[in-house]
Amino acid sequence: MNQTFAKRAESLAPAAVYEILKHCGPGKAIAFAAGNPGADAIPGEVIAGYMAEALTMPIPQTLLYAPTEGYPPLREKLVADLKSKRNIGNDDDKIIITQGATQAIEIVTKVFCNEGDVIISENPSFTGSLSAFKSYGVQIEGVDMEHDGMCMEKLEETLKKHPNARFIYTIPNFQNPTGWTTSLEKRKKIYELAKKYNTLILEDDPYGDLRYFGEDIPTIKSMDTDGIVLYAGSFSKTISPGLRVGYLLMHKNYMEKLAAAKQISDVHSPSVNQIVVHKMMTEFTMERQLADVRAIYNRRLQLTCDCIDKYLGGRVSYVKPEGGLYVYVQLPAEINVDDFCGQALKDGVGIVQGHSFEVTPDPNSPYFRINFSSPTDENLEKGIRILGDVLKKF
Amino acid sequence: MNQTFAKRAESLAPAAVYEILKHCGPGKAIAFAAGNPGADAIPGEVIAGYMAEALTMPIPQTLLYAPTEGYPPLREKLVADLKSKRNIGNDDDKIIITQGATQAIEIVTKVFCNEGDVIISENPSFTGSLSAFKSYGVQIEGVDMEHDGMCMEKLEETLKKHPNARFIYTIPNFQNPTGWTTSLEKRKKIYELAKKYNTLILEDDPYGDLRYFGEDIPTIKSMDTDGIVLYAGSFSKTISPGLRVGYLLMHKNYMEKLAAAKQISDVHSPSVNQIVVHKMMTEFTMERQLADVRAIYNRRLQLTCDCIDKYLGGRVSYVKPEGGLYVYVQLPAEINVDDFCGQALKDGVGIVQGHSFEVTPDPNSPYFRINFSSPTDENLEKGIRILGDVLKKF
Repeated sequence: MNQTFAKRAESLAPAAVYEILKHCGPGKAIAFAAGNPGADAIPGEVIAGYMAEALTMPIPQTLLYAPTEGYPPLREKLVADLKSKRNIGNDDDKIIITQGATQAIEIVTKVFCNEGDVIISENPSFTGSLSAFKSYGVQIEGVDMEHDGMCMEKLEETLKKHPNARFIYTIPNFQNPTGWTTSLEKRKKIYELAKKYNTLILEDDPYGDLRYFGEDIPTIKSMDTDGIVLYAGSFSKTISPGLRVGYLLMHKNYMEKLAAAKQISDVHSPSVNQIVVHKMMTEFTMERQLADVRAIYNRRLQLTCDCIDKYLGGRVSYVKPEGGLYVYVQLPAEINVDDFCGQALKDGVGIVQGHSFEVTPDPNSPYFRINFSSPTDENLEKGIRILGDVLKKF
Repeated sequence: MNQTFAKRAESLAPAAVYEILKHCGPGKAIAFAAGNPGADAIPGEVIAGYMAEALTMPIPQTLLYAPTEGYPPLREKLVADLKSKRNIGNDDDKIIITQGATQAIEIVTKVFCNEGDVIISENPSFTGSLSAFKSYGVQIEGVDMEHDGMCMEKLEETLKKHPNARFIYTIPNFQNPTGWTTSLEKRKKIYELAKKYNTLILEDDPYGDLRYFGEDIPTIKSMDTDGIVLYAGSFSKTISPGLRVGYLLMHKNYMEKLAAAKQISDVHSPSVNQIVVHKMMTEFTMERQLADVRAIYNRRLQLTCDCIDKYLGGRVSYVKPEGGLYVYVQLPAEINVDDFCGQALKDGVGIVQGHSFEVTPDPNSPYFRINFSSPTDENLEKGIRILGDVLKKF
């Protein structure tokens, strides 16, 4: 057996976060590492009820093969709600249901990017997306994040340098890993620059519904009069990641290729899971669910910031996010972040180094990421207290 | 907006079968076109019961993020059953749960094939797989099917001509679209040739459990002492395609890359669906389910053959399959198959031309495919009677 892999497979490896998670769990370290929702934020009984209801529907609607594009009532409801609630989408747009936003990102990459093409991404960014880009042999050009979004000078410079860049990848709301939100001004500028340099925008918005205070900022997709923004959303953070239901809204010209790419990948997403999401959206439990989730995570965010101030205060800094799941903490320059995270794991807390999320990891990057949605309140306080003790060792 | 697609996207288009299905359904044509199971063969109540049971388990096991490789008890049970019941797999093999066998085929292609590489496939074959291969810019070399499997002389000739072929793709049991089964002798030969020419085998076996009479033939994977066979299976035809649960068994050396490819595609398959399949397998309803499905489809197969003999007899020929979902019918040479299928659709029956499944479609190919699992007994007879009337017009 001396079979070799495809060239593109060179980049394929388990994500760093999963390696850390192996050391986390009951009896092991406290996990601040993944982007998991809190178990107490998942409406298990509501889902069970709707799943049972779904399974009383005729079998051709639930358990046979189904349309690749998704369960038609869910697609209709989503299009209507995105428009009425957030002014997203217009008559030229179509929607496809995906296995979480993850699949949306993969099929967009597959359909639009040749090997060697350039994608421009925020830096740092979500490792799942960066891995998807790399898995198609794409060259990623990172544009450094500032507290209000990418550096616009650097973005324009990168667009000039790479006139055939396929798209700009951005998570404008409560970005992963930084928790930082792109300002309205910068969103407008990103859209203008994409038009000017004739490229697309892939707007990834899994956290858009998770704002705990402050004012919603219009999405870039809501400005899209030219059909250049592909908008990915997900129910993974607001209902349950286990259902694997996300979506991609884009100009109708892209639908056929993207649907064919999904068809090749998995034919369609499970109907029952899509019906459950549709029932959540139409039977008015979604608003209640969002209110519940926001209340839980807002409490955890406040607790996280209070504990950071109490146990690490004075030696670290961070920008308090207005939503999402993450706080990005900056260590003093004299501390090596790998040493710090390694010691934290030994002492019982799994956190991820900021450079794990960088396009080209810089070991001198002084950040680590805390996920505050997954741990219990008790473990949040305990874990941050431990991080404070770890900090004293440096 | 003048964005272009990636080169690989040129091949991406809706499958022919889906185009035909648009004209089928209640009040429209009878569908003999897709590979859908019969609604009466889906154990809806059993699935509903197990789904409800699954949702009483703790939320971290059901509705949060889960391991990419799949639900551990299902993986263990599958490995054990494949070994004990069919002698498939050994200590060096690993299993990953996929979204149907479809995803197994896609990730194998992504991980092993560079653009321009060669895959050797049975011709005709499953269009979903051929589309997946094409979507990675792979060159497919077809080897014509005979009633007992590929032509071995042609296979060896093709291997000689393409010494770097990445893998041989085969559906040895009740092949799609032909329904033909590869003999034991040819299975052994395929394995020998793969070894001799240093290539892999992708054995796709979604119909292996659907034998209605005759003796089971050992899988190629069961001969795999060299770790060169990747074996894809599915519960889509035996439990429900709507659950989207399949699997890939392969040498452990391939696991990391394939799991990373799945992680990039959809993180993991929904846990609840995997738990349902595990419950079917461990609580002994699977054997009953298989017996039920086999009884229903065997009846439909007999009915199909009886009706073909009655209504089309003398002018068409076919090899009666011993299992699976399809009968491949050969028209007289003077009839144009596109004209015949077009007229059939007008007169109320959706069937698919054999050349739709060919690597390089030959419009003179005299075959069409009947799927007999999906229609009711009544529609089966009615549909084939209509086909008989259509035949009289030619």
